[in-house]
Amino acid sequence: MKQENNKPSFASDYLEGAHPAILQRLAETNMIQSAGYGMDEYSESARQKIRAACEAPEADVFFLVGGTQANATIIDAILRNYQGVIAAETGHISIHEAGAIEHSGHKVLSLPQENGKLSAREIASTLDRFYRDETHEHMVQPGMVYLSQPTEYGTLYSYRELKEISEICHQNGIALYVDGARLAYALACPENDVSLPALAELCDVFYIGGTKCGALFGEAVVIPKHGFLPHLFTTIKQHGALLAKGRIAGIQFDTLFTDHLYEQLGQTAMEAAARIRKALLEKGYQLAFPSPTNQIFVTLEKTRAEALGKTVELGFWENLDENHMIVRIATSWATRPEAVAQLIEAL
Amino acid sequence: MKQENNKPSFASDYLEGAHPAILQRLAETNMIQSAGYGMDEYSESARQKIRAACEAPEADVFFLVGGTQANATIIDAILRNYQGVIAAETGHISIHEAGAIEHSGHKVLSLPQENGKLSAREIASTLDRFYRDETHEHMVQPGMVYLSQPTEYGTLYSYRELKEISEICHQNGIALYVDGARLAYALACPENDVSLPALAELCDVFYIGGTKCGALFGEAVVIPKHGFLPHLFTTIKQHGALLAKGRIAGIQFDTLFTDHLYEQLGQTAMEAAARIRKALLEKGYQLAFPSPTNQIFVTLEKTRAEALGKTVELGFWENLDENHMIVRIATSWATRPEAVAQLIEAL
Amino acid sequence: MKQENNKPSFASDYLEGAHPAILQRLAETNMIQSAGYGMDEYSESARQKIRAACEAPEADVFFLVGGTQANATIIDAILRNYQGVIAAETGHISIHEAGAIEHSGHKVLSLPQENGKLSAREIASTLDRFYRDETHEHMVQPGMVYLSQPTEYGTLYSYRELKEISEICHQNGIALYVDGARLAYALACPENDVSLPALAELCDVFYIGGTKCGALFGEAVVIPKHGFLPHLFTTIKQHGALLAKGRIAGIQFDTLFTDHLYEQLGQTAMEAAARIRKALLEKGYQLAFPSPTNQIFVTLEKTRAEALGKTVELGFWENLDENHMIVRIATSWATRPEAVAQLIEAL
Amino acid sequence: MKQENNKPSFASDYLEGAHPAILQRLAETNMIQSAGYGMDEYSESARQKIRAACEAPEADVFFLVGGTQANATIIDAILRNYQGVIAAETGHISIHEAGAIEHSGHKVLSLPQENGKLSAREIASTLDRFYRDETHEHMVQPGMVYLSQPTEYGTLYSYRELKEISEICHQNGIALYVDGARLAYALACPENDVSLPALAELCDVFYIGGTKCGALFGEAVVIPKHGFLPHLFTTIKQHGALLAKGRIAGIQFDTLFTDHLYEQLGQTAMEAAARIRKALLEKGYQLAFPSPTNQIFVTLEKTRAEALGKTVELGFWENLDENHMIVRIATSWATRPEAVAQLIEAL
Repeated sequence: MKQENNKPSFASDYLEGAHPAILQRLAETNMIQSAGYGMDEYSESARQKIRAACEAPEADVFFLVGGTQANATIIDAILRNYQGVIAAETGHISIHEAGAIEHSGHKVLSLPQENGKLSAREIASTLDRFYRDETHEHMVQPGMVYLSQPTEYGTLYSYRELKEISEICHQNGIALYVDGARLAYALACPENDVSLPALAELCDVFYIGGTKCGALFGEAVVIPKHGFLPHLFTTIKQHGALLAKGRIAGIQFDTLFTDHLYEQLGQTAMEAAARIRKALLEKGYQLAFPSPTNQIFVTLEKTRAEALGKTVELGFWENLDENHMIVRIATSWATRPEAVAQLIEAL
Repeated sequence: MKQENNKPSFASDYLEGAHPAILQRLAETNMIQSAGYGMDEYSESARQKIRAACEAPEADVFFLVGGTQANATIIDAILRNYQGVIAAETGHISIHEAGAIEHSGHKVLSLPQENGKLSAREIASTLDRFYRDETHEHMVQPGMVYLSQPTEYGTLYSYRELKEISEICHQNGIALYVDGARLAYALACPENDVSLPALAELCDVFYIGGTKCGALFGEAVVIPKHGFLPHLFTTIKQHGALLAKGRIAGIQFDTLFTDHLYEQLGQTAMEAAARIRKALLEKGYQLAFPSPTNQIFVTLEKTRAEALGKTVELGFWENLDENHMIVRIATSWATRPEAVAQLIEAL
Repeated sequence: MKQENNKPSFASDYLEGAHPAILQRLAETNMIQSAGYGMDEYSESARQKIRAACEAPEADVFFLVGGTQANATIIDAILRNYQGVIAAETGHISIHEAGAIEHSGHKVLSLPQENGKLSAREIASTLDRFYRDETHEHMVQPGMVYLSQPTEYGTLYSYRELKEISEICHQNGIALYVDGARLAYALACPENDVSLPALAELCDVFYIGGTKCGALFGEAVVIPKHGFLPHLFTTIKQHGALLAKGRIAGIQFDTLFTDHLYEQLGQTAMEAAARIRKALLEKGYQLAFPSPTNQIFVTLEKTRAEALGKTVELGFWENLDENHMIVRIATSWATRPEAVAQLIEAL
Repeated sequence: MKQENNKPSFASDYLEGAHPAILQRLAETNMIQSAGYGMDEYSESARQKIRAACEAPEADVFFLVGGTQANATIIDAILRNYQGVIAAETGHISIHEAGAIEHSGHKVLSLPQENGKLSAREIASTLDRFYRDETHEHMVQPGMVYLSQPTEYGTLYSYRELKEISEICHQNGIALYVDGARLAYALACPENDVSLPALAELCDVFYIGGTKCGALFGEAVVIPKHGFLPHLFTTIKQHGALLAKGRIAGIQFDTLFTDHLYEQLGQTAMEAAARIRKALLEKGYQLAFPSPTNQIFVTLEKTRAEALGKTVELGFWENLDENHMIVRIATSWATRPEAVAQLIEAL
């Protein structure tokens, strides 16, 4: 993944620093003194803007540093000791968080997925099977559902799909939590019909990703119903997730939610992704998943991948067989048109 | 702690953003692409400079986000499940980390302290009592010692004190870990004789604080003996402490360890603290602890504290009785001479 | 502690097997088939008898194996992740449970004690200090109080003391839990005025000890208010505390609560303790704590202790200084009059 | 599962108390005083007999209470914080232990199985895939393998299979642990070629089940290499798994390992199972798994199962479809020939 001279990289969407507007704002406010731990005026302003964008005026909003941290902290706050979290077997918490959920004592109950997505039906039948099982009190009780939007495969839940899942959860008295690490790229996607207010309507908790969407770091956790997670501040501290200089996260989200910067960032990535996707299809490449967002997964012969790798850097995803692999092409708020042109030419 | 217009605050040492050199460096490097998770060239450069400054060429160096996170992660990595960590009863991990150590399953074994410091004698007699106790296998085994330098009371361990503690630890086969959240203010203190190489010589792990010493955030964990904590990368990820954009921490520490910026930052704070301390003593104020670093603790009548609070903001520390309290005056890399003058005048 | 031929031991109250009535009942029922996990008729009968004895007809009753297990399981079930448990610094969970409470992620908040007892005043002032502290959201929230009756020093809470503590707890919305490992010896003590119904009235959870009170093993957890700890069955299983052959615990408690056997067991121990205490006082021995129950703590010269140890086995408790120590003399349901005579003669 | 009058039950193998020889021994030793926590002479004798039976003279042996407890304690003692345990997706720890493994912070890495068994090939390819994955440091490291012998489906690993798995484990520096909850029924099975010495040769830790093999409760953990799990006593205490009256477990295992009682118990179950299996096959019943031990799984029409249930009690296992289910017939050391005859007649 090391960047080489002049070779543009599409290996991930966190290769650069931050959107320049964020750096400028950090510089402008730098020497002003403010309170710590998120009690500052920038964080408060950011919270207000996020509440407005989500049409959730009562929402509790907390700024955490990273995605694994947000997932571990929120899931620990939602679950009771005897409960676990339902997630797709491809979900980030199922595999790539080094056991952060289990570290807090909770089992990840992995379910089969399709294109990275869980279905309401699969969740419903899991809950049904659990409660019908005579021995279910010997088993970890499903206490919540974890989804990501977009998913780890770049796919999207539709409003209808999310609503069905939300209904299943709430009929069963369990919480719905959505990981929005790349939410800007969902919000800017033409195919998307799940807005921030829709997330606030359907989820018990979700987070708006900053790290992969133009911030230096930071994830904004939104809890539409005030007080749903009591003493979350203490839980955040306990998870080592409380920033002393909370303002640094606050300033970033305040900037991202000023003048629709967050959506604009997403559009830059979408436009780049659309150009690349079009070129791939025209040239007969095979897409591994139908992902409409900023992550494009291409099935390639290994020799072809190697050749491409000489001009542009791609993300390794998975070996399929001896001769084929899946690579990931990720665009972002920072993707330059020239880099896209270079990639298309290489294709 | 909310900052009011034009009233300078001495409430803590993390009231501003970052040293301007850091912001400038972030801006310069902003659009360069680099690998994630600390695999970037900035982090590597920072690691090399820290190894050089510590005269520990084989050291493993990791950049984490905050102090509680660093403590919880490192302590969890050092201890086995049946072990606990010895700390002063006033240690940060004993009280103000919301149970982060216990969250990983480990008991904090709190010992009496003097001016925020543990003594080698106290540690030795604790270990002795433990191993003499016939029932010690029913108890949590002391597995390491946690110190902070400077302490939570602004005091310092001398080289000799630290060496004695280090010897006790290593004679008993347990690790010594030093929390350097405010290490810049120790290193710049005229009374200090514990250098970075001394820390590398005596400790198994220590961290060089960034958050309270001029960075936006960040703590550099130093493990002088390479491989002492195997798979720490995974443990860091598990604790939600792995930055996707590791470069942001790397760039900051690379800047702090260029041209001795880290020591210079400390000196600014020391000079301000010296002026304030002198004024306090001249005016007959009573210092609560003999702290030579950037934190000054003053015993005040409450009415006096209230009056002072109209001109400058101080940190509340502790109620002593109905009429008296301890306040904290913290200087930092960002303390302006005018603010010091304003404070002295108010005194 | 190894028993030598013909030398009676007073080292602890769990030196023998079980009251013969229990063994007989186990033999009688041995080949009858019954359901597992406490769903059997013996466990159900025991639950009914315990409910009756506690005058708590709605109580949930669970049979666990041992004291540390019961404490860890119940405390984990009561607390939320951000909470800790208040206990005397001499409390069993504070020291002698190898970090079992912390293993579930919870801090033990140790308070000073007098003769092994916490006072309502100390608890109240701790809660008060906590909530007045501006930084309390950075600290572990006290979520419950743990007491033992009798205490680890053999002392007793009076009804009035317990009622005051109960009121403080409930005014502050936190739970009161009483560890009754040696409860039979409290119930049989002439000085005691805390009956089983009183415990059911004042506590949220308590356990009636079997292991040290005549059973092979087993502790009966009583939750006066049905449903106070939802899904406790699953938590018990998760803690490895669910007996497959739950009947073995059920049969034992059914026997202990038939024909007042539990109280009678206690009386045997009380009578022996009274004789020993009287002899000690007559002979000018110094009692270390004013314990009216089955544990007697005597301050002895080490040479005297050694001499005594040739005739009877005593429990080592604590070294006081170079020449003095505290020994424990524990009587039990199984203490034989001849052994008492032998001890008194040796004194 | 409630037993009804005179209707024999085959629902499980823990329906009765204990083998009469155990009760007799408990009665004989009842009033003898002995030390606690497994320091008594009975436990020592049992340890010696188990070492002899396993031909492992240096083995550490500990007596725990139940299977889930033994699994959680041992797995926690073996793994480091960043490691997880490989198990069959049908393994007891994967499903039926209420998250006990995760409670200690460890992920269960579930693999596909065949007839309840893991294969060396599956384990090898899992380890291979893990270490080839560029992101494996973001994932839970496989730290050990958990097997059960016999498996949850009553099937057996052959010596060769176990040896292959053992070799894969040790080539990769990870531990092999075998759950022998029903080991007596493996040892007595004519098809079995894995003796106790073979287990001691191939495993790092295994346990010899008592609860389901004739004891009131108890599992003997065997660690062939002395010191392999340092301070396990403390870990056992921390898990609430340390019996105060350790003798009760010691006496039981001492009895089970006197005059080959443990193998004899198994033979009683095997003979009953052989008769039932023969009858089932003769009458055209379909076995769900090829299990040669004391658990027989039969695929039945639900109406047939219901009819059978009027005469004998069977164990519900799993619904296959609307009309078919799998039932379990478990024999044990306590299965009476008349009960077998009654069952066969009902078939």
